[in-house]
Amino acid sequence: MSWQAIGIFDSGVGGLTVLREITRALPQEDTIYFGDTARVPYGTKSPETVSRYAHEITSFLVRRDIKLLVVACNTVSAVALSGLKRQFSLPVVGVIEPGARRAVEVTRSGRVGVIGTSGTIRSSAYTRAIKRLNPDVEVLTRACPLFVPLAEEGWIDNQVARLTAECYLHELKQAGIDTLVLGCTHYPLLKPLIAEIMGPDVVLVDSAEETARTVAATLADKHLLRPAAEKGNNHYYVSDIPAGFIRVGNRFLGGRLGDVYQVDLEKDREEC
Amino acid sequence: MSWQAIGIFDSGVGGLTVLREITRALPQEDTIYFGDTARVPYGTKSPETVSRYAHEITSFLVRRDIKLLVVACNTVSAVALSGLKRQFSLPVVGVIEPGARRAVEVTRSGRVGVIGTSGTIRSSAYTRAIKRLNPDVEVLTRACPLFVPLAEEGWIDNQVARLTAECYLHELKQAGIDTLVLGCTHYPLLKPLIAEIMGPDVVLVDSAEETARTVAATLADKHLLRPAAEKGNNHYYVSDIPAGFIRVGNRFLGGRLGDVYQVDLEKDREEC
Repeated sequence: MSWQAIGIFDSGVGGLTVLREITRALPQEDTIYFGDTARVPYGTKSPETVSRYAHEITSFLVRRDIKLLVVACNTVSAVALSGLKRQFSLPVVGVIEPGARRAVEVTRSGRVGVIGTSGTIRSSAYTRAIKRLNPDVEVLTRACPLFVPLAEEGWIDNQVARLTAECYLHELKQAGIDTLVLGCTHYPLLKPLIAEIMGPDVVLVDSAEETARTVAATLADKHLLRPAAEKGNNHYYVSDIPAGFIRVGNRFLGGRLGDVYQVDLEKDREEC
Repeated sequence: MSWQAIGIFDSGVGGLTVLREITRALPQEDTIYFGDTARVPYGTKSPETVSRYAHEITSFLVRRDIKLLVVACNTVSAVALSGLKRQFSLPVVGVIEPGARRAVEVTRSGRVGVIGTSGTIRSSAYTRAIKRLNPDVEVLTRACPLFVPLAEEGWIDNQVARLTAECYLHELKQAGIDTLVLGCTHYPLLKPLIAEIMGPDVVLVDSAEETARTVAATLADKHLLRPAAEKGNNHYYVSDIPAGFIRVGNRFLGGRLGDVYQVDLEKDREEC
């Protein structure tokens, strides 16, 4: 048993969907969330820069004595996860592996679709993760660049969102996939719409849910879970507070976003 | 007369619409474009950070011996223009003032609409610029966050773009404005659609066009224009080359984007 908190970070607000699933699965746990809102987006930055940022943020969270790190960011999970595992001596969970594993488990036809941002799809990180688990699975991918701004705008069930989703998902539906991985932390907000368009024969794999499941299993395995009767606290840090953060964050957490503190990673390191 | 080039910069690809209008108005001039693609977007960064970036980029362009600087970025124009004018001894043209001036000139009803990104609208930069020119003009604003991703996706005349524009523009149309400022460098791509929705009684003010007009007038005034019979060259620099830059850039320039060079501002300064 460990009373330490779970650390979670993302380049911005998207990782809050992962936090939501973790607090649902493990309400007894304290969490510390860090959103690198001053430097978002990561998808257009070089792997070296992303790795450096990830190291800085992990150091910040480790100084706050976390027991497990969740990399709730597809870009960091794709390029910096193994580096973080080498550099820090605590369990590290990314968002790609859990979704990939679940997809391989549930597919019957062996045809899996993956949707994500242009950066994630271009990185082929999900395709590689799925192929590592089962080389026979066929992976069809589609970048959906408008899904993130739609989710942040709160347009998740209007006609614009519907037409956009129909356009993006048309080919995957025609291709006869039976499993679709939501490979972006923003996409759980669009899940009901995507489910409706794909129909009842396609299983949606929600990376946020699967990541939470992996976190719970890892903590249980290492005997680090808090007693189930406890009630955890959630702390939020960001590198900058853009005007929209509170509004969008509350949308992602169903109105349960607490106080958000702005920190300077540079100064924080010097003070500790 | 001066053979030096015109320098133009933006946080990313959007400023290419301003470049397009400048090369249309002044085909005889050489241009040097800089897109800070490694650090885009600026809208969520602090004024101090944005000012520092603007100073770095202007220094880069000044080292390439430009005769006039165009700040083709709304965020920089809003927070750093006066600083650049103080720090550098060359003519500096931003994108906000030209659009604001044109709106004040053309409005008959005295009701002007302004659309832009959330950051630009929140900054009230256009409202202040218009009020400075004529305090009696009523300014109605609307942030249109999905217009940038729509333009970058190339969805400028499909049903998704149409429904989105109708939703964003509905209130401005109801409010009876007679002039609408396109206060974002991406929006000229959506101009035909916006014009159709607003109808023939609303004059659209294209900041890119107005900025090009101001550039031409400033160079003429200072006797810095090249002979009209010349044919200028266009050079492109970026701080990072994201996979989509060439594709999106060509969409913005109608397929005429030339070679793009990646530069490291830090190293460039040391070498000069």
